[in-house]
Amino acid sequence: MTDLRTDGLAALEWAADYLDRVGELPVLAQVAPGDIRARLPTEAPEEPEPFSAVLRDLDDIILPGVTHWQHPRYFAYFASSASAPGILAEMLAATINSVGFLWRSAPAATELEQVVLAWTAKLLGLPDGWHGHIEDTASTAQLATIIAAREATGRNGIVCSEHTHSAVDKAARMLGMRLRKVPTDDQFRLRTDELRDLSHAAVVVATVGTTACASVDPVPEIADACAAAGTWLHVDAAYAGTAMICPEHRWAFAGVERADSVVVNAHKWMLTPMDCSLLWSKRPEDLRAAFSLVPEFLRTPDAEDALSLSEYGPALGRRFRALKLWAVLRCHGASGLRAHVRSGVGLAAQFADWVRAEPGWEVSAPVHFSLVCFRAPGDDDFNQALLQRVNASGEMFISHAALNGRYVLRLAIGQLTTTEGDVRQAWDVLRREATALG
Amino acid sequence: MTDLRTDGLAALEWAADYLDRVGELPVLAQVAPGDIRARLPTEAPEEPEPFSAVLRDLDDIILPGVTHWQHPRYFAYFASSASAPGILAEMLAATINSVGFLWRSAPAATELEQVVLAWTAKLLGLPDGWHGHIEDTASTAQLATIIAAREATGRNGIVCSEHTHSAVDKAARMLGMRLRKVPTDDQFRLRTDELRDLSHAAVVVATVGTTACASVDPVPEIADACAAAGTWLHVDAAYAGTAMICPEHRWAFAGVERADSVVVNAHKWMLTPMDCSLLWSKRPEDLRAAFSLVPEFLRTPDAEDALSLSEYGPALGRRFRALKLWAVLRCHGASGLRAHVRSGVGLAAQFADWVRAEPGWEVSAPVHFSLVCFRAPGDDDFNQALLQRVNASGEMFISHAALNGRYVLRLAIGQLTTTEGDVRQAWDVLRREATALG
Repeated sequence: MTDLRTDGLAALEWAADYLDRVGELPVLAQVAPGDIRARLPTEAPEEPEPFSAVLRDLDDIILPGVTHWQHPRYFAYFASSASAPGILAEMLAATINSVGFLWRSAPAATELEQVVLAWTAKLLGLPDGWHGHIEDTASTAQLATIIAAREATGRNGIVCSEHTHSAVDKAARMLGMRLRKVPTDDQFRLRTDELRDLSHAAVVVATVGTTACASVDPVPEIADACAAAGTWLHVDAAYAGTAMICPEHRWAFAGVERADSVVVNAHKWMLTPMDCSLLWSKRPEDLRAAFSLVPEFLRTPDAEDALSLSEYGPALGRRFRALKLWAVLRCHGASGLRAHVRSGVGLAAQFADWVRAEPGWEVSAPVHFSLVCFRAPGDDDFNQALLQRVNASGEMFISHAALNGRYVLRLAIGQLTTTEGDVRQAWDVLRREATALG
Repeated sequence: MTDLRTDGLAALEWAADYLDRVGELPVLAQVAPGDIRARLPTEAPEEPEPFSAVLRDLDDIILPGVTHWQHPRYFAYFASSASAPGILAEMLAATINSVGFLWRSAPAATELEQVVLAWTAKLLGLPDGWHGHIEDTASTAQLATIIAAREATGRNGIVCSEHTHSAVDKAARMLGMRLRKVPTDDQFRLRTDELRDLSHAAVVVATVGTTACASVDPVPEIADACAAAGTWLHVDAAYAGTAMICPEHRWAFAGVERADSVVVNAHKWMLTPMDCSLLWSKRPEDLRAAFSLVPEFLRTPDAEDALSLSEYGPALGRRFRALKLWAVLRCHGASGLRAHVRSGVGLAAQFADWVRAEPGWEVSAPVHFSLVCFRAPGDDDFNQALLQRVNASGEMFISHAALNGRYVLRLAIGQLTTTEGDVRQAWDVLRREATALG
C-alpha cells in the first residue's frame, strides 16, 4: 500500500529535484506522436504496484514526453508558473478532497473562495462588492458569462473582435449563438466605429491582452456602446489581468470597472497551478438565475443563508481550488506578485530592444505586458522554419501568431525562474538559427 | 520563500496526520454560514508570509469549516475517497503543471490519458476501441455529449427519466434544448413503454445507478428504441460505473456496450481525488466535429498525426489529470479496486439487513451497489428531523432523497477507510436519535 509519509517523501523529492533540473531538459518534448503510448503497457496491473514504480516510470517513460511548462526558457503561449505554495496547497486540497457543490458540503472551501476572490479583486483594483468565484478555465468562465448574458438580455448575439480568444467562437458554437467579429485597428484593437448596432447583442467580449499580441481593446468606448444598448460587457483579461496589481499598468484596464464581468486566470501569470480561472461579476443574480438549479437531493436546512457556488456556473462538482490561491497570495504577498509581473515586463522590454536594434529584425506589434511579437528578416516560410529550428533545439520554446496575415513569432515571459540570462540565451539561439537557415 | 522540500515535508505531515485523525473529527462541519469568512482577514498580505502560517491557519480557521469527505463515517451523497497514490500524483501534476490543449504542449499527458482510459475501459468490460478522455465533472461530460448528439442528429430534444441527475436539466437550460422526463416504474427505472416517439430526440440519457436510489434503467430496451430512432444513447454511470470492475455486478451494465457514450467518475468510487470524470464514446468523430476549433495560434506542424484532446470537449486548457488515475490504477491494482467495491457493497447489504430486521424501519428502494435508502418509523417530518439530529451529532453524515414523494434517508458507502464498525456505529446513532426524537 502506498504510504503518504514515506512514498510522499519520495514524491516530494522527485518534485523538488524536477524543478531544480528542469532548466537542463529540452523545453519542447523531443518525441513523435505515439512514442510515449508505445512504451506503456496495454492494460492495468492486476496486483498493486509500489508507488516507487510510478516514480520510476515517471522518469523513464513520461518525462521524455513532457513539454516543460516550468522551464525558465518556456516562452510559448502564455506561461503557467506553478510556485511552491500552490503546489503544496494542491496536495492539501486533494487530501481534504471536499466537493463544494453546496455550502454545507464544503463550508470553508465556499467561504475561502469568496474571501480570496475579494482579496484578489482589491489587489487588482476592481470595484468593491463584485461577486467572485473560480472556474476551471477561461473557456468555462466565458461560456458561463455568455449564457448569463443571453438569459439576462433575451438576445442571441455575441460580438467580439477578430483577435478575441477562440474560446468565444467555441462557446458560440456550443450554444448555437450568432457571433459577429469586428475588425481591429492598426494596433489590433477592436474598432469601435465598426461596432454598429448592438440591439441584438447579448454580450460584447472585450479583451485586455489578446492571445496573439496582448493588444488592449478600448474598453471605455465599448462600455459606452454596451450601456447604450443594454448589452452585457465581458472583459477577457485572462492573461494580462494579473498586471493590474501594478499601478503603472492600470491604464490598460481603464473602463474595466464598468464591465458586467471580467475573467483573470490565476493559473497564467499569478503563480497558481492549473486550473484556477477567476470570474468576477457585478451581476451575480444574473449568473444565479441562469445556473441555479437545486434538485431535492441538494436541498439543505441552511440553504436560505448560505451561498452555494455551483449555482453560479455550469459544473455541479467543485474542487477546493481556493486553497492554492490563498497559499499563493499569502506566501508571495502582494509585493512578491508585483515583483514577478515587473520582472516579466522588464525582460520583455529588453528583448524587444534587442530585436529592434538588430538589422532586418522587427517588432511586429506594440509591446504590452510581457509578450513580444517579432519577425526575423525573411518571409513567412523563413520565420516558420526558424520557429521549428529553435524549438527543435530544446533550448527554448516559442509559439507564433498571425498578424495582418503575416506569420510572427511570439515570445511570452511569465516563469518565476526566468532570468535575463535565459532571455539573452533565447536571443542568441534565435540569431544563431536564423544565420544557419540563412 | 516557500521551500518545496522543507515546507513540503510539513505539508506532507499535515496531510498524513489529517487522514490519521479525520475519523475523530465531526463529519459535518459544525459551523454556521459566515463563520469561517468572519475569521479571515479582509485583504491579502502585502509582504510574503511563511508557508507555516498557512498550515497554522488551515488548522485553526479552515478545518472547523470542513465537512470531512474523507471521514470513515461520511455516508452522504456519493463518497469521494482520495487515496494516497492519487493525492501524491496530484502534487506531481501540479509540479509539472503542463497545459494539455495540444498534443505538442503536453505529449505525455495526452497519450497517458488515452492509455489509462483504455486500461479502465478494459477493466470495466467496455468494448475495445472506444475513445476515452477526462473531463472535470460529469456535468461537463454530459454537456459535451449532449452537444455532440445535437450536432450529429440535428435535433433539439433530450429525453431522460424523472430520476436522471440534475446535470441534464442544467445542460438543457444552458443549451436551450427541450427536455422530456419519462416516468419511472416501481423500482425507479425509466419506463420504456413511456418512451414514445424519439424522432425529435437528439439523445436519451439512461442512468445506471441513479443519484436518489442507485436504480438501474433498462439500457437494452432503451438501446433498441434509440437504434430505431437514430437517437444518441448516453449512459450516466458516474457513481455505479466503477462496480463494472466486478463480474458479479456486470448484469447491471447490460446494454451499455450499445451506448454511444458513457460517463464514469473516477473521483467517486475509484479512489481518485476530485476531479476526474471519464467519458468514453464510440463516436469520437462526432465529439470532434462538435468541439474541434483550431485557431492559428494552436496550429502546429505535428497536428496531422497527433491527437489534441481539447478538440473533444468544451474547455481548451486541460490539467494533467491522467497522472492521478495512472497512479491509482497501478498502486491499487485491479484486485485492490475490486476489493474496495466489494467492501462497500457488502457493508451496504449488511446495513440494509439491520434496517429490515428492525420493527417499523424500512428499506425504501431495492438496494443496488453501496447505497441504501431507508426510513425510520414516522412521517416525513420525523425523518427529516432525524437526519438533522444525526448529522448535527458529528458522528456520521447522511443525505436524503425523495422517492414517490416521500422523504427517505440515504446512506452511501464508498470511503476506503470505512469498516463494519463505522456502519454499526451509524446504525446505533440512528436508532439512538430516533428514540430521543420519540
